[in-house]
Amino acid sequence: MKKSAYEQAGVSINRGNEAVKRIKSMVGRLGVQEIGKFGGFFPLKGGIKNPILVSSADGVGTKLKIAFMTGVHNTVGRDLVNHCVNDILVSGARPLFFLDYLASGRVEPGIVSEVISGVLDGCLENEMVLLGGETAEMPGFYQEGEYDIAGFIVGIVGRGNVVDGKTIRKGDLLVGLPSTGLHTNGYSLARQIVFEKLNLKTSSKVSELEAPIAEELLRVHRSYLKPVQTLLEGKLLKGMAHITGGGLLENIPRILPEETAVVIEKAWPVPPLFSFLVQAGNVSEAERYRVFNMGIGMVLVIEPRNLSRVEFALNRMNEDFYLIGQVTENKGGVRVRIK
Amino acid sequence: MKKSAYEQAGVSINRGNEAVKRIKSMVGRLGVQEIGKFGGFFPLKGGIKNPILVSSADGVGTKLKIAFMTGVHNTVGRDLVNHCVNDILVSGARPLFFLDYLASGRVEPGIVSEVISGVLDGCLENEMVLLGGETAEMPGFYQEGEYDIAGFIVGIVGRGNVVDGKTIRKGDLLVGLPSTGLHTNGYSLARQIVFEKLNLKTSSKVSELEAPIAEELLRVHRSYLKPVQTLLEGKLLKGMAHITGGGLLENIPRILPEETAVVIEKAWPVPPLFSFLVQAGNVSEAERYRVFNMGIGMVLVIEPRNLSRVEFALNRMNEDFYLIGQVTENKGGVRVRIK
Repeated sequence: MKKSAYEQAGVSINRGNEAVKRIKSMVGRLGVQEIGKFGGFFPLKGGIKNPILVSSADGVGTKLKIAFMTGVHNTVGRDLVNHCVNDILVSGARPLFFLDYLASGRVEPGIVSEVISGVLDGCLENEMVLLGGETAEMPGFYQEGEYDIAGFIVGIVGRGNVVDGKTIRKGDLLVGLPSTGLHTNGYSLARQIVFEKLNLKTSSKVSELEAPIAEELLRVHRSYLKPVQTLLEGKLLKGMAHITGGGLLENIPRILPEETAVVIEKAWPVPPLFSFLVQAGNVSEAERYRVFNMGIGMVLVIEPRNLSRVEFALNRMNEDFYLIGQVTENKGGVRVRIK
Repeated sequence: MKKSAYEQAGVSINRGNEAVKRIKSMVGRLGVQEIGKFGGFFPLKGGIKNPILVSSADGVGTKLKIAFMTGVHNTVGRDLVNHCVNDILVSGARPLFFLDYLASGRVEPGIVSEVISGVLDGCLENEMVLLGGETAEMPGFYQEGEYDIAGFIVGIVGRGNVVDGKTIRKGDLLVGLPSTGLHTNGYSLARQIVFEKLNLKTSSKVSELEAPIAEELLRVHRSYLKPVQTLLEGKLLKGMAHITGGGLLENIPRILPEETAVVIEKAWPVPPLFSFLVQAGNVSEAERYRVFNMGIGMVLVIEPRNLSRVEFALNRMNEDFYLIGQVTENKGGVRVRIK
């Protein structure tokens, strides 16, 4: 068949349509009807007093390179969704819907449907609707077999239930919820250490680690929806920080009132992946807590008198957690001191 | 100064922070306070019965390459915003807020702030809030000086005011609103014709065109907010199609009821840019109406008895428009016939 001029320029509308078809068949699971029109529809239910929409945009960063290296494309979508969910959870919001933007040089329906299946898994896991998305074919932008993906989330919270850290006071406690790995941050450094400095292959086994190195690096960024929602229902949380780029050092201050600081004690088991990276890469103490989450993906700030209720609730859900620090006075120095 | 290991891996958190700072200072104009936290807040006002959120995600496509070639980075953000606005307008929705995702190999604060200033211009133009965004630094993903950008919009409409084309009947009229240029579609083909086949430079002047070729190609994708909102208030619209990728041929059927088709008459002045591209690229009749908007960026479907009211309203706003066709019966053949 003769290629049209448009196809010769590197864009195939038919190939794009095939990808959209596969996406639609999967999207059926979530009962969204309006995907494929110009915009997705989300009917707002009543019942929330002074509703506030909370929205966030994010990407997966260079973790995508691990997907490219391994050919495993069905998990980065979950990374993306869970990252976005956690970013609105910290305000006390409940996820409503999600949209994705997926761009590559050439739309490969097989890869696109794997990536989107991960997005759908993430949406299902967080009981959220995939309302729409854009699959862009951009010849000359991305290397062959590569792509970038961005996600957009909208959630809702009543004004009276917003969690913003404003009530945090000296003496409050910091509870850390464990991460499942690097989540979506620190991959540029991790890849440099693993694949350049140490010259490992994706399938290489490192003695300290259970799985091959690429599998360890691909572990899915977890969602904290379940434990956080349960604690929110009990009005047990004064503030939350999602530990992303900038680590504990930069994310915790985002929710601290001016007059407060925190002291963190290294009271949690640092997962072997982090110990390995830090040692192999000779990553300084200051830098490791800025670039990596070091095993803590979400920090909750609670009142001391609520500790036993928080412990009880988390234990009941079989959620691991660690008491990792305390709120102190801001004496004009560093806001996060790690002892 | 010694570079940290993270900087050596190509990521500078400081450079990212500098870009965020510049963005914040601009965002002040729109009165958004919550940017820079984990999620942006948008308080929902009441007064809309059975509210539906309408949301869309999109990019600018390879029009970005023209920005890279010319070094003009302050208009693609407007393209992005206006494209998204038009995509929800067609459902009858009013824009509420916008988020952007901007990814590059290396964050250049100067370029980032230019791109975002365009996004802000677009938000201001459409009376919408820029609620947040992500500026991602992804070494090894994008060529030096290049980037990709995605946008995400949320609007609102009451269920009773949704425009979805369901009431479109045989005999209804099609009104076309002019485009300002290629908008954001057809750039892969246009670039091939202009810069490969004809081997023109960005500054080349083509006799048929007023401005240098790159300037013609960069013209901003316009927003149809003002004319469309006025016609919506008068309940004068049965359906709207935003003419994006797929052109008149693929976008109009998206809103047509099964039993209808349309006949388009070439009754509008095709802008010289399209005539030039079609001739120089030897683009077939069938292809040109699929790849390019050919001068019509928005199609409105109205009842014949409302024509004079529509004309009056558009004339009052000094909006150009063309009666371009009519709804016919779907006899199982092509849905859009261009005579």
